Amino acid sequence: MTVAIAVLLSASFSTFAADIQGESITVARSGSQPSVPGGMQRFSGSVRIDPLFQSAAPSRLSGGLVTFEPGARTAWHTHPLGQTLLITSGRGWIQQWGHEKQEVVAGEVVSIPPGVKHWHGATSTTGMTHVALQEALDSKNVNWLEQVTDEQYRQP
Amino acid sequence: MTVAIAVLLSASFSTFAADIQGESITVARSGSQPSVPGGMQRFSGSVRIDPLFQSAAPSRLSGGLVTFEPGARTAWHTHPLGQTLLITSGRGWIQQWGHEKQEVVAGEVVSIPPGVKHWHGATSTTGMTHVALQEALDSKNVNWLEQVTDEQYRQP
Repeated sequence: MTVAIAVLLSASFSTFAADIQGESITVARSGSQPSVPGGMQRFSGSVRIDPLFQSAAPSRLSGGLVTFEPGARTAWHTHPLGQTLLITSGRGWIQQWGHEKQEVVAGEVVSIPPGVKHWHGATSTTGMTHVALQEALDSKNVNWLEQVTDEQYRQP
Repeated sequence: MTVAIAVLLSASFSTFAADIQGESITVARSGSQPSVPGGMQRFSGSVRIDPLFQSAAPSRLSGGLVTFEPGARTAWHTHPLGQTLLITSGRGWIQQWGHEKQEVVAGEVVSIPPGVKHWHGATSTTGMTHVALQEALDSKNVNWLEQVTDEQYRQP
């Protein structure tokens, strides 16, 4: 089993060559892009989003680091082109609509197909952080739905 | 500055619901997908690739964890839709053709535009690991070119 310790810091973008934007490699240095609180319409509890990157077209990809304090979670939502979660620390829960809640831990990779209604977050007792990767379809990469009720959150 | 300690392990995929493939969330458990040595045509030195995920269409995304021992690097190459590197440990070098070599360290995020000829790897004295994220165009996500010579690798 191979283990790599990964340190991902909130970051901002700085071009390290004088070329025209989009034609040169850029490096996002750590620590200068502000953290964003997870909004009350889309999350419950204490959630912090640290933007990592937003690729330019023709790429469709963006990524961010999302940290959920114990009890915190997303609302129910779907992604038009799906989403991949790299669990980077802690222990969390993910649930697909109509399925049982599942536990995920650091080192696991979650693949969420397009259009699948789901939520993810921390467990009730432990925080969880993941890298979230999603591709945009017509400039949209998520469709937010209703909140996850406490009853839904707590049920097995 | 926000720091998250990330543990990314080599992993394999296991469906945790009995649905038709592609309609249910899957979790890649850690440690059961074999590491792959970086091939001699595409890499120099000791390189280990730990596959993380390969999303199904309509997603174009795949990701892997790549570990370079000191002195190890890719050959020169391009990506039809670009590439994003999340540096997860150590210290490495990246160079765009015709530009100076740049140092990257854990926590930084590198954005490589489509078609830009480049290489990346460890420094001569320190290992480096990154998550590599790339989208495929017509099922191809990389075009391999010539090796990076020792002279190219060592020059500032």
